[in-house]
Amino acid sequence: MQRTEISTLGEFGLIKHLTKDLKTKQTSTKKGVGDDCAVMDFNGEGLQVLMTSDMLLEGIHFNLEYVPLKHLGYKAAVVNFSDIYAMNGTPTQITVNLGVSKRFSVEDLEELYSGIRLACERYGVDIVGGDTCSSMTGLTISITCLGVAKPDEIVYRNGAKQNDLICVTGNLGTAYMGLQLLERERLVVQGNDKATPDFQGKEYLLERQLKPEARRDIIEKLREAGIHPTAMMDISDGLSSELLHICGQSGVGCAIYEDKLPIDYQAVVLAEEMNLNIVTCALNGGEDYELLFTCSLNDYEKLVPIDDIYLIGHITKQEQGTLLVGRNGEELPLKAQGFNAFEG
Amino acid sequence: MQRTEISTLGEFGLIKHLTKDLKTKQTSTKKGVGDDCAVMDFNGEGLQVLMTSDMLLEGIHFNLEYVPLKHLGYKAAVVNFSDIYAMNGTPTQITVNLGVSKRFSVEDLEELYSGIRLACERYGVDIVGGDTCSSMTGLTISITCLGVAKPDEIVYRNGAKQNDLICVTGNLGTAYMGLQLLERERLVVQGNDKATPDFQGKEYLLERQLKPEARRDIIEKLREAGIHPTAMMDISDGLSSELLHICGQSGVGCAIYEDKLPIDYQAVVLAEEMNLNIVTCALNGGEDYELLFTCSLNDYEKLVPIDDIYLIGHITKQEQGTLLVGRNGEELPLKAQGFNAFEG
Repeated sequence: MQRTEISTLGEFGLIKHLTKDLKTKQTSTKKGVGDDCAVMDFNGEGLQVLMTSDMLLEGIHFNLEYVPLKHLGYKAAVVNFSDIYAMNGTPTQITVNLGVSKRFSVEDLEELYSGIRLACERYGVDIVGGDTCSSMTGLTISITCLGVAKPDEIVYRNGAKQNDLICVTGNLGTAYMGLQLLERERLVVQGNDKATPDFQGKEYLLERQLKPEARRDIIEKLREAGIHPTAMMDISDGLSSELLHICGQSGVGCAIYEDKLPIDYQAVVLAEEMNLNIVTCALNGGEDYELLFTCSLNDYEKLVPIDDIYLIGHITKQEQGTLLVGRNGEELPLKAQGFNAFEG
Repeated sequence: MQRTEISTLGEFGLIKHLTKDLKTKQTSTKKGVGDDCAVMDFNGEGLQVLMTSDMLLEGIHFNLEYVPLKHLGYKAAVVNFSDIYAMNGTPTQITVNLGVSKRFSVEDLEELYSGIRLACERYGVDIVGGDTCSSMTGLTISITCLGVAKPDEIVYRNGAKQNDLICVTGNLGTAYMGLQLLERERLVVQGNDKATPDFQGKEYLLERQLKPEARRDIIEKLREAGIHPTAMMDISDGLSSELLHICGQSGVGCAIYEDKLPIDYQAVVLAEEMNLNIVTCALNGGEDYELLFTCSLNDYEKLVPIDDIYLIGHITKQEQGTLLVGRNGEELPLKAQGFNAFEG
């Protein structure tokens, strides 16, 4: 593969190269890449603007030994879209800041950018700016995303009420198990030229880790069904952690049921193999980018026909605590074990 | 000084700690820190939204041996405000993404954040979100800023016309000379316990490097005087580089005059001492965050009474090239030497 040094293009040349044939599609985008700022017009439709920002650092959030750059770009964009959907909004624009060391070639960055662009095309989002600069070590990606929503449709974290249903989409802990699989196979292959990683029968786990999607489909279905969640978040740091945020900000308690947690069978198989507790993984594994939401008991009938939404419990009074009810009826306090990036 | 490890707070604890008593002031800010997204309402006033983003990396953009963290925070915010003013807009909200290694304590980040907050207070900007995560090495700061402007008041880079006046504010090359001074004194002190850095008589150079301001005052004065620039940029990468952007995007040429370039006397003195060509520094030294703009010849009368604006030349036909006219009338092609962060 060709390797073009970034220094042959320089900073401006690099940005120009990566963004040269970008076309904007959002009517709100008035000016994209190429000036001091991007310009957006959100007037006239009564919409409010949502803004979210995420940073991904090499060695912390991703390992390029097994994460292809294109997937990384895709994921870096999608995790931001997921935050916008989690407010019941629609993502519209992003800016992309990249810090890259000399290890990376222009072709590498094209790969990364092609993933970002693919995600933007799929979700109808415009790339409107960004900064590209050299770094001493590794790759840093910082993306900021704007979105829009009607003011009365925005869903915050603080609206959960006693007796509300607690729902999640998709399945839980799968992205985390995908990461475990990648790490295991990396160690198998390491220092052994003849070994190849074995992912057979577990491709779905990899997909969930390497190429997550934001649940735009669920947001659309809830809207069509006339369901307005009372609180909502996306699950980026694990179910327990997110649910404790909702309960804390809403001033309520919760009870969720171990046997109701949606878990994929490939994840169960791998957890067995690796001697991991799959329930712990489902509660605390991050990066699933599924939605966690609460809604009124009155919405139950409307909720049932929608695919891929699972009722896992209900909201209680604050005094009742935040509980996980086990298979034998035992009650355990929910803990945000998460995977604290500042520890270890 | 007390040192609290970041791991004692964890990621959420850290964000909460750093943002705990933030008050939002912009009427457009509906929801700040604490949910998946910030929420803004830009409706009803016919304003367009501006968005800009900048990334600062340790070892590339700053050296913590001589840059105090509070100043760094201040500067990281102000450089974004500068981009918004350069479009003739008003900055309104920022999100702050930080990547920090274990070398940094909670107190360090408080310092950094206090600088960001001070800048936001001075410029009336709300901090509405961000991400804080650990990094393998060093400090990474990525800030995204939103601003507003009336659609017909936004100034792009592509509007310069033949015969327009070329103006700059403040003085040029000063921040670059400040950096040279800091580097020189760092080397003097290095490995010599008894030596102390000598900045006497050159404090202004340090201020320009360490604590730049965005030229809100100029934007306000131009507005009051009824002057609408035809093209504008802030000078972050050096006058030559920026002027070539304006000429390129506007499809015009330019002639600027060496003897018209505003240069501070402290910068001249240091350039003498260090055997540097001060004109080269003024043309190519970055980080001044002054404004470069073009305006109609008809605005000349209105322009003259405004303090701290300097006419340095005029816009010509594209065929005439982009020229620097020396003190003896010699014409040299303008080059964007800049200080390419991808070279060396």
